[in-house]
Amino acid sequence: MSAVPSPLRLPEVPAAVLGIDVGGTDIKSAVVAASGSVGAVERRPTPRGAAALLDEIDLIATAHAGRFDAVGLVVPGVVDGDVAVFSENLGWSDLPLGRLVRERLAVPVSFGQDVRAAAVAELLLGGGAPYRDPVVVVIGTGLSAVIVRDGVVVAGSPLVGEIGHAPVAGDGADEPCACGLVGCLEAVASAASIARRYRRLSGRPVAGAREVLDAATRGDEVAVGVWNAAVAALAFGLSHVVAALAPDAVLIAGGLSHAGAALVDPLREHLAARLSFHRMPVVEAARLGGEAGVLGAALAARGMAARARMSAAPTRMAVAR
Amino acid sequence: MSAVPSPLRLPEVPAAVLGIDVGGTDIKSAVVAASGSVGAVERRPTPRGAAALLDEIDLIATAHAGRFDAVGLVVPGVVDGDVAVFSENLGWSDLPLGRLVRERLAVPVSFGQDVRAAAVAELLLGGGAPYRDPVVVVIGTGLSAVIVRDGVVVAGSPLVGEIGHAPVAGDGADEPCACGLVGCLEAVASAASIARRYRRLSGRPVAGAREVLDAATRGDEVAVGVWNAAVAALAFGLSHVVAALAPDAVLIAGGLSHAGAALVDPLREHLAARLSFHRMPVVEAARLGGEAGVLGAALAARGMAARARMSAAPTRMAVAR
Repeated sequence: MSAVPSPLRLPEVPAAVLGIDVGGTDIKSAVVAASGSVGAVERRPTPRGAAALLDEIDLIATAHAGRFDAVGLVVPGVVDGDVAVFSENLGWSDLPLGRLVRERLAVPVSFGQDVRAAAVAELLLGGGAPYRDPVVVVIGTGLSAVIVRDGVVVAGSPLVGEIGHAPVAGDGADEPCACGLVGCLEAVASAASIARRYRRLSGRPVAGAREVLDAATRGDEVAVGVWNAAVAALAFGLSHVVAALAPDAVLIAGGLSHAGAALVDPLREHLAARLSFHRMPVVEAARLGGEAGVLGAALAARGMAARARMSAAPTRMAVAR
Repeated sequence: MSAVPSPLRLPEVPAAVLGIDVGGTDIKSAVVAASGSVGAVERRPTPRGAAALLDEIDLIATAHAGRFDAVGLVVPGVVDGDVAVFSENLGWSDLPLGRLVRERLAVPVSFGQDVRAAAVAELLLGGGAPYRDPVVVVIGTGLSAVIVRDGVVVAGSPLVGEIGHAPVAGDGADEPCACGLVGCLEAVASAASIARRYRRLSGRPVAGAREVLDAATRGDEVAVGVWNAAVAALAFGLSHVVAALAPDAVLIAGGLSHAGAALVDPLREHLAARLSFHRMPVVEAARLGGEAGVLGAALAARGMAARARMSAAPTRMAVAR
């Protein structure tokens, strides 16, 4: 599914916000009123370069002038505080985008990473809503998780949830990882790794994991092997998450989640086989599609506005239901 | 180290308590006076079977009659409320031990899991005090963890922290586990497993992991192999904990922690080799040693007595610093 649940309505907070999700192809934006009603998601092409991006964000804000009190901005790549450290697609590095947008628009701006924002939206508004202790695993170019405990996103170090860089056993355990280690979960089970391993093992070109899955469905033995190795590695990694945290649900988000049953059905089987007395969590593909990022951006800005009203700032983001 | 810090004196509370830690090998007990002074820790062999265990607990209580107002009882395995759900080592399942002891002794009884109690004691009274996000790994007959995040013990399912039953790779990955799976961390790295593996691989009798370590120190190659496999497996498992949770410290508690530098020095090396961009946590042996469980049991009973004076019961255990 790729549509925002309709009617989607968030709890009332003290501020209307403008959510902005800067993607590699387009910028999505939506206003969420203080009442909680979500406006239409608008799309504009993402310009190249920091100056053009700032101008485009200004244009979006101007189009919604008077309808928001704060902005939630998310970008791809590595984010550290107010700084967009690196994005290979958008041609910036060490860009203090949070501060620049805050100065340009003269409103409070929350700044964050698109993947994490999308995962939080999935937790709050998508498949995570029925659960207290869910984990969202976002699988695309990379592989990482957002962990929720008792309705609160587990925070601490910015490295919390980077489960892609822990070792797996079995087929693929000799796979070198971009991080410098060998046999990381991400090196076997990310969408990018599935495509890369298939290319190398088959000698055939393939655009992405979707094509590997299609080939596996047609009976291509190399594709079957690569896909099964990814599922087995994911189950291996998840068995450690389940052992440590006993989540009630695991939601698979990101590009690979589009595989749907072809991913989650065998994943359930592999994971169940790895558990003895541990509880088998619900395992499902995420429900929110491409709008998860802009919704997550808006949620972050609403959280910031709510916290600004409280005397003691919490160190962890409370997930209101 | 195996001694309770001396002089160890807890804060004054309204009740004297008898802490009882039922272990796989022996039952430890100690009275903690309302004033906070900690009595000597006594040990008796753990009998097999629920009826014999109840009788033994009754004997311990009788020996201390008149010196306590409440009992803190902790047991190994999985605990859910008043029920000892499962212990693969002591052969019970679904035993309502908390209620049975409460009825037998006719005093308030707090009931909990040994690992969690020991870890909380370590966190409160031992090496955990300087850290915000520590993990305590208790290694004895079993192997499990208590996870603290932002000063609060991560709760949820009673299975949270059961990291011993997730798979490892390398030497020992073919080891059958008492839980029914193969290659669990606990099957390679618990103190009991170290002794069992050494016996099987060497054909020589050994009382426990301590003797295996002594043999390894003397150059016994089988002992070296078994010890190294345990350390490597522990690093493997911890690399998953670090990836998911980015703890600032890992404290090794339980019987195996008595190995001190012989355990934590190579563990640090193995763990560092398993991390790329993830932060290397402080890795230390716990300070409290084998008395942590009985102290934790007493702490829980004292907490129960203190809460009985308060109107609102907290939903999660706060770790006061």
